[in-house]
Amino acid sequence: MPDVIPHDSVGLVSPRTQHFDEPLTLRSGRVLPQYDLVYETYGELNADCSNAILICHALSGDHHAAGYHSMDDKKPGWWDSCIGPGKPIDTRRFYVVALNNLGGCAGSTGPTSINPETGEVYGPDFPIVAVRDWVQSQARLADVLGIKQWAAVVGGSLGGMQVLRWSIQYPERVKHAVVIASAPKLSAQNIAFNEVARQAIAKDPDFHDGWYHKHGTIPKSGLMQARMLGHLTYLSDDAMREKFGRELREGKLNFSFAPEFEVESYLHYQGEKFSTRFDANTYMLMTKALDYFDPARDYDNDLVKCLSQSKCDFLVVSFTTDWRFAPERSLEIVNALTHADKNVSYACIESTNGHDAFLLPIPRYLNLFHAYMERVATSCNLPEVAHE
Amino acid sequence: MPDVIPHDSVGLVSPRTQHFDEPLTLRSGRVLPQYDLVYETYGELNADCSNAILICHALSGDHHAAGYHSMDDKKPGWWDSCIGPGKPIDTRRFYVVALNNLGGCAGSTGPTSINPETGEVYGPDFPIVAVRDWVQSQARLADVLGIKQWAAVVGGSLGGMQVLRWSIQYPERVKHAVVIASAPKLSAQNIAFNEVARQAIAKDPDFHDGWYHKHGTIPKSGLMQARMLGHLTYLSDDAMREKFGRELREGKLNFSFAPEFEVESYLHYQGEKFSTRFDANTYMLMTKALDYFDPARDYDNDLVKCLSQSKCDFLVVSFTTDWRFAPERSLEIVNALTHADKNVSYACIESTNGHDAFLLPIPRYLNLFHAYMERVATSCNLPEVAHE
Repeated sequence: MPDVIPHDSVGLVSPRTQHFDEPLTLRSGRVLPQYDLVYETYGELNADCSNAILICHALSGDHHAAGYHSMDDKKPGWWDSCIGPGKPIDTRRFYVVALNNLGGCAGSTGPTSINPETGEVYGPDFPIVAVRDWVQSQARLADVLGIKQWAAVVGGSLGGMQVLRWSIQYPERVKHAVVIASAPKLSAQNIAFNEVARQAIAKDPDFHDGWYHKHGTIPKSGLMQARMLGHLTYLSDDAMREKFGRELREGKLNFSFAPEFEVESYLHYQGEKFSTRFDANTYMLMTKALDYFDPARDYDNDLVKCLSQSKCDFLVVSFTTDWRFAPERSLEIVNALTHADKNVSYACIESTNGHDAFLLPIPRYLNLFHAYMERVATSCNLPEVAHE
Repeated sequence: MPDVIPHDSVGLVSPRTQHFDEPLTLRSGRVLPQYDLVYETYGELNADCSNAILICHALSGDHHAAGYHSMDDKKPGWWDSCIGPGKPIDTRRFYVVALNNLGGCAGSTGPTSINPETGEVYGPDFPIVAVRDWVQSQARLADVLGIKQWAAVVGGSLGGMQVLRWSIQYPERVKHAVVIASAPKLSAQNIAFNEVARQAIAKDPDFHDGWYHKHGTIPKSGLMQARMLGHLTYLSDDAMREKFGRELREGKLNFSFAPEFEVESYLHYQGEKFSTRFDANTYMLMTKALDYFDPARDYDNDLVKCLSQSKCDFLVVSFTTDWRFAPERSLEIVNALTHADKNVSYACIESTNGHDAFLLPIPRYLNLFHAYMERVATSCNLPEVAHE
């Protein structure tokens, strides 16, 4: 809980909900007859609507990217380190839109919503959504908000995949694309990790094939295991060594199967916390969207041809110890963009924090991100802000 | 099933069982009043008992390291690529002993054995064993077999840890130590992977806190998940890309949660197979032995001081794409041995096969291993064998 709102925070914010009546035909062929998107905005949209930034969230993210919902909040939004007055995405210059994706569990229509066709909770009947479906729904939200072209579409991890998709799906509507700690598609290893996580959920007896709502259960144990595994892949070996080493909770071996190394307790804690706040069907869906993402597939598996569709400038950022989406994966994007004659800036940031680094206030990262966003502002002819 | 036994195979072999009545006090303080060790031998022990090689197995291994139990066997023992006439561990020169470790589930006393104190299956009451306990029990087996000193103690992964432990626990009894794809202790990340695997087993409702025998159940789903995760960490990202890429079983996306990428089917298959052959309590124990291994702890956390106890020569081998026990971990051992003025040879073998490489017939690896074992034979004054 902040005693006072920090001066570089967007302050107290409230989500809004936009209802859509026009049916959305999904990649799978299924149709969502109607849906809600919950979103937040920070900063002011200027008169010619040229200063709008779209934030795309990752697997477990949502629309609450910055600021506080109340003075009782223990933490600000998930990307508060990068969004706010004076921060890389400076809300004195930009109008920022962050939404919860379709299939999510933070307010947008998803497995926990009521299926209008049955009057009951969707549960596992909620269709599997693809990254392109999210992008289409985000474009409709942009229409409602009067945003013809985003000054930038920005995202990390699965969020970065949405950015790539935006750049080829609506090339006229994106001026800059910021793709952080992402990849042009998952590797077999990435898919395998996702499948192990899904198995943990699917095999939890409280999952009931996704119908846990009807059974009054929550597959906490499965979600906890999935999150423990996810967390493991977000952290680097180095970060874990620095943070935990082989420290024992009680200073000695227990010769029991209870968590006794600090790293075990930490993962248990993270897993427990997640299992009470996140929806299992949503977790399943989000990992499938990750697995399916492969925009080059529609272009003879040629990423150059694929990204040639785009018309924007790109910033691509990776982190040295990120092994979930290693720097080599970002370089695949950079190389394809270069071959496609696109304007691309690339930085690989030194960090021990693994994939998680993209959420952290690493000075070199923030500086570089800030500098790029200044370039975005200049290219959009946004007025300067007074430096403090 | 081999139609004929290959000429470079040890042929048909049979396990033997050695019973021990002398109680064994374990690292945990608990005492095993009596126990059996099941083992196999290949080749002939020479008159002065100077040509004996001990093979230490890894997490899911056992005493069946080479040859066939019957003409119906589909596969030979787990390290058949390295043990046999003309192979790196040449059974024309060496007498090879391979055993199933205490706590195992292939015949040696473990969780599936009868607890003589209760007359019932040990189950989860079987004590957690440490690497030093295995080494002590292996030394007792050596006593029975009349082997005062091993020409070499050899092992990969968790097997390599037993080799290290042998070298400091019984320095007079080891002439050469061969430590392959191993580490001086687990990293926090390694421990975390083990804990996620244990959680998968422990949370399986068929596990019943380890008393599944009493309930007539088998925690197949938990074991399957644990194995899927284990397998993931044994393979490299490169190996998975080469083997599976993003190939789809049915050539197209299903938009369902059934396994649809080849890599998912493969892991399911491996997991299923393992879950019917391996004991869950043993899996729990073995991963704990891995977590606990840290011989330097008794020497002020100084690996140089620790390995200074040893009197043997060392061969240390790592593999380029092994990320479970990366080459850097082998180098920690090599550097400590060098600082301790020990005679150590080291090779890092180019391979795309990840941790699994140590089980595979990679020519450079086999050649180098072979050359080192010739040196072992020479240092033990073993007679030459005629080259075919």
